[in-house]
Amino acid sequence: MYRLYDYLPSGNGYKVRLTLRYLALPYEVVEVDIKQGASRTPEFLAMNPNGRIPVLDVPGRGLLAESHAIISYLGKGSSLVPDDSWDEALMWQWMCFEQYNLEPAIGTARFWLRSQRRTAEELGERLTEKLNAGRAALEVLEKGLSGRNFLVGDFYSLADIALYAYTHVAPEAGIDLHPYPAIRSWIRNIESERRWAPITSR
Amino acid sequence: MYRLYDYLPSGNGYKVRLTLRYLALPYEVVEVDIKQGASRTPEFLAMNPNGRIPVLDVPGRGLLAESHAIISYLGKGSSLVPDDSWDEALMWQWMCFEQYNLEPAIGTARFWLRSQRRTAEELGERLTEKLNAGRAALEVLEKGLSGRNFLVGDFYSLADIALYAYTHVAPEAGIDLHPYPAIRSWIRNIESERRWAPITSR
Repeated sequence: MYRLYDYLPSGNGYKVRLTLRYLALPYEVVEVDIKQGASRTPEFLAMNPNGRIPVLDVPGRGLLAESHAIISYLGKGSSLVPDDSWDEALMWQWMCFEQYNLEPAIGTARFWLRSQRRTAEELGERLTEKLNAGRAALEVLEKGLSGRNFLVGDFYSLADIALYAYTHVAPEAGIDLHPYPAIRSWIRNIESERRWAPITSR
Repeated sequence: MYRLYDYLPSGNGYKVRLTLRYLALPYEVVEVDIKQGASRTPEFLAMNPNGRIPVLDVPGRGLLAESHAIISYLGKGSSLVPDDSWDEALMWQWMCFEQYNLEPAIGTARFWLRSQRRTAEELGERLTEKLNAGRAALEVLEKGLSGRNFLVGDFYSLADIALYAYTHVAPEAGIDLHPYPAIRSWIRNIESERRWAPITSR
């Protein structure tokens, strides 16, 4: 059985859990309390020298880190990865955009506010920068979703899972999703997919 | 013929140029002076709403952004992408690590210092943070390369191209590579690959 080292409020871990659930792959979760430094212990660093969750233990193969590497490994050959190579490239385009532009902004601001319980006053300009970057990323996503049900082709793919994870919790980072109607409609599409579950579900 | 919208000192653009050259795919370069805002004009934003180079115009298909999406599209089916799905997952693990941990640190510090010609004094703590994050990423890379010629399997792959691009110019960001012998040896391996060319080559 797959073993997932994860921190349940993490959007990156959630991407893996959504993918495992969608594909009906049995797995167990080992919780790693990143707030308490549990991903920086010598034991954890021996599993992932980068000191981050999620890490997936794949029976017979080994340990795999990085949420998008994990979901693409799990999703290979399934309906979550487009057959057409151009569509697959567009899927990765969105997933790379998420890791570079969306997650570092929205995910980090959310972590500071929600997990570390720091305040906007205390964070000051650093938070403002993150929120501005998060809104800029959401503008790009809103444009990409205009007139579409899903990000690539017209079907649910890893790109949707990857971008949804932090987008739908943007309000927890202090970003109102009201100005983004295409994003809100896409969130509803994803949440009506089979085997969807909320972010902190195991 | 492929048309690449690029800024020649960019490590992200360089990844695409190295891949195109390695695969002997003919291409032309359209230079975009990102220092002068040329990637934020209405014309450029119509091509890539995220306002970033590189963008590849693929005849008969369209425009593709994000360096790793582009190189994986180009490299599909070639020797640069492992046949084995686990090795392919490890390739993506390194490529995701690069986009999240290495490039934002080393690439950004290098851009501030080299392209924007800002000084360490002027940048202060923001530069220190980037350099610390850059050195932490290099530590992870050094561990990953220990006892190996290349990052995945024992052959040159997209992971090597993707990680090499900003690693080999770390000195331009003010990071000395002397403490990383495995990285230095790996850089020599890559620079002896066929069709290698320096970063600002068209």
